Amino acid sequence: MADFNVMRELHTSATTKIILLVMDGLGGLPREAGGKTELETARTPNLDRLAAEGICGLSIPIQAGITPGSGPAHLALFGYDPLRYEIGRGVLEALGIGFDLGPDDVAARGNFCTVNEQGLITDRRAGRIPTSKCIELVQMLRAITLPGVEVFVEAVEDYRFALILRGPGLADGLTETDPQATGKAPLPVQALTPEAEKTADLLNRWIAAARQILASQQPANMVTLRGIAKNPGLPSMPEVYGMKTAAIATYPMYRGVAKLVGMTVLDAGHTVEDEIAALQRHWNEFDFFYFHVKKTDSAGEDGDFDRKVSIIEHVDELLPQIMALKPDVVVVTGDHSTPAVLKSHSWHPVPTLLWSAFCRPDRAQAFGESDCAQGALGQFPATDIMPLALANARRLNKFGA
Amino acid sequence: MADFNVMRELHTSATTKIILLVMDGLGGLPREAGGKTELETARTPNLDRLAAEGICGLSIPIQAGITPGSGPAHLALFGYDPLRYEIGRGVLEALGIGFDLGPDDVAARGNFCTVNEQGLITDRRAGRIPTSKCIELVQMLRAITLPGVEVFVEAVEDYRFALILRGPGLADGLTETDPQATGKAPLPVQALTPEAEKTADLLNRWIAAARQILASQQPANMVTLRGIAKNPGLPSMPEVYGMKTAAIATYPMYRGVAKLVGMTVLDAGHTVEDEIAALQRHWNEFDFFYFHVKKTDSAGEDGDFDRKVSIIEHVDELLPQIMALKPDVVVVTGDHSTPAVLKSHSWHPVPTLLWSAFCRPDRAQAFGESDCAQGALGQFPATDIMPLALANARRLNKFGA
Repeated sequence: MADFNVMRELHTSATTKIILLVMDGLGGLPREAGGKTELETARTPNLDRLAAEGICGLSIPIQAGITPGSGPAHLALFGYDPLRYEIGRGVLEALGIGFDLGPDDVAARGNFCTVNEQGLITDRRAGRIPTSKCIELVQMLRAITLPGVEVFVEAVEDYRFALILRGPGLADGLTETDPQATGKAPLPVQALTPEAEKTADLLNRWIAAARQILASQQPANMVTLRGIAKNPGLPSMPEVYGMKTAAIATYPMYRGVAKLVGMTVLDAGHTVEDEIAALQRHWNEFDFFYFHVKKTDSAGEDGDFDRKVSIIEHVDELLPQIMALKPDVVVVTGDHSTPAVLKSHSWHPVPTLLWSAFCRPDRAQAFGESDCAQGALGQFPATDIMPLALANARRLNKFGA
Repeated sequence: MADFNVMRELHTSATTKIILLVMDGLGGLPREAGGKTELETARTPNLDRLAAEGICGLSIPIQAGITPGSGPAHLALFGYDPLRYEIGRGVLEALGIGFDLGPDDVAARGNFCTVNEQGLITDRRAGRIPTSKCIELVQMLRAITLPGVEVFVEAVEDYRFALILRGPGLADGLTETDPQATGKAPLPVQALTPEAEKTADLLNRWIAAARQILASQQPANMVTLRGIAKNPGLPSMPEVYGMKTAAIATYPMYRGVAKLVGMTVLDAGHTVEDEIAALQRHWNEFDFFYFHVKKTDSAGEDGDFDRKVSIIEHVDELLPQIMALKPDVVVVTGDHSTPAVLKSHSWHPVPTLLWSAFCRPDRAQAFGESDCAQGALGQFPATDIMPLALANARRLNKFGA
């Protein structure tokens, strides 16, 4: 794992450039016994060449057996011990929509939901209302005021919004209101510490007001709040690693994590082609680029093996455009595995390649789970990726005399 | 390693079943340079099939280079950091014979030994007296009383017994009396902390009384005390992992460790066939079964390469009876290596396979040290086994959002 004090002490300036290409949920499983995974099925001549010239392994995002959420999995890729540094989902949502979260703000992820006449939830996602409807409802909820604090309500996507309270004396350590099942009533926010009592009270008042405002709306006639948390105040990557760091990601949450660790979040458009254009446009301005591809994970979550294969192949086709920029170090990995056969994130370690002129290539000849299992990196913690990338970029001095 | 707080937070209910099959001292060494280990020599078509369908690796019980005792090695298999959680041998002996150890009891492993007229030990095991003799002598030692505490003396097996003191103010942190060599006198118990002074004094009084009672006995005319310790109060597996856990083991010490971590210890008989019958009998009652095979280790300790091979082959022949129960996850491993050529426990990492429908199979095709060294798990801490087993049994929720 990256020891941040060691990183701070050893990092040195250089003109080299690093690309961390993260295909979300990259790792997979064979569709049938004895078969190949999504990545192994995909025709990926360019990734295979990088794997053959580079060094490969399987990275463990959190710990053996632990299925990571996207937040902790990304922290690990950026070198942050995800068991030490925790980010509430509300914080991620707020940052992901570009909300400028202050150090003492409390943020919650809100879901519109449907309740019946008894107040029991019948749909936890309010029929997945479109974003346009979400924006309209959020506008209505902005009428709610609370004593002594500022209140921000921001639409996110579909049925999701962010609620942020700003003011003195707010604290986190609060329970969620989503009962995680239909047929149950939303729960009250409860304080887990005495310091959080005031914040719990304010949030419960806000929920009561929201219930009244939404009462006549269908299907989004109620809200739940989840992941209520403060900005954790993480160390910043530019400070820890001594690099100008940029994030290219299309999806709010990943932009949010990147912002949280101090990266400059670039305008990345909507497609991988857009993202490459952003990379080209900003190539001279930064030392390090986090480049995120979301749709591999979405396909895995949908259980669509073939679509995941296609997306990987599409990234492979575009890879020469990235390599044409002549990066010094390229890491290709995922934040976690999302095997289509499981239709969910999983605990399986993630195929990872590191390519540079100095990486000491191993015998792995293709980019896939089985080859990576034979790679010289073996199974290794994802938090090792950043120190390895910096070392290969000649950005770390010697430790000790 | 299993972070217990993470396990507690993430474990979820399921109907899946896990078997942890531990062949004690499984790992070995080739008999001659270039040869095969015991496991590689054994004809094991059933284990080989599990290895081919599963994921393999070499587990490190404690740390690289460390030869484990059975207690810490088993704690690691159960997910307990053996450097953090220590169990005195006396505690294991007491629990292994079914003694209901209280939280403040102090337990010691006792050995009958032979001393000459000068009080010097001539046989540290009193000619390995039979258990019947041990029971008779223990009955005599029960006459000893001590001020302010209850005293329990229990026969274990052959020349071994357990001594337990119960009462207020007892402490551990005490030296052993076995000088670990013949020609020397038994040592006094010494307190390593001021709080343990009283306990040391009581134990020395008990030893003096035992010496008098045994004076005329041959060859068991004296005792030594080892591993004097309190119940360490370990977290319980059912609480940490959220599973109903059972232990099937024929040998007292392993039953003792299992009890210490909160497993229900089943009546397991004396043979592997008896143990399988116990597994079948209790199959519907538990989620997790620790299944222990002792004799691989005994053969290794005796330096009997061929007998160790035979025992492994015998287990392999019985394996279809275990698989017929349709477990969801099967882990086959050892607690440590006991190479016949070394006639002792060793530091070598232990061949390990994990079989489940979701394990992401690797290229290992047979169950043996060389194949496991090429397995996708690589060399990995034995404490990872439980989280991996739970993950494969779909018994862990996602960590973070």
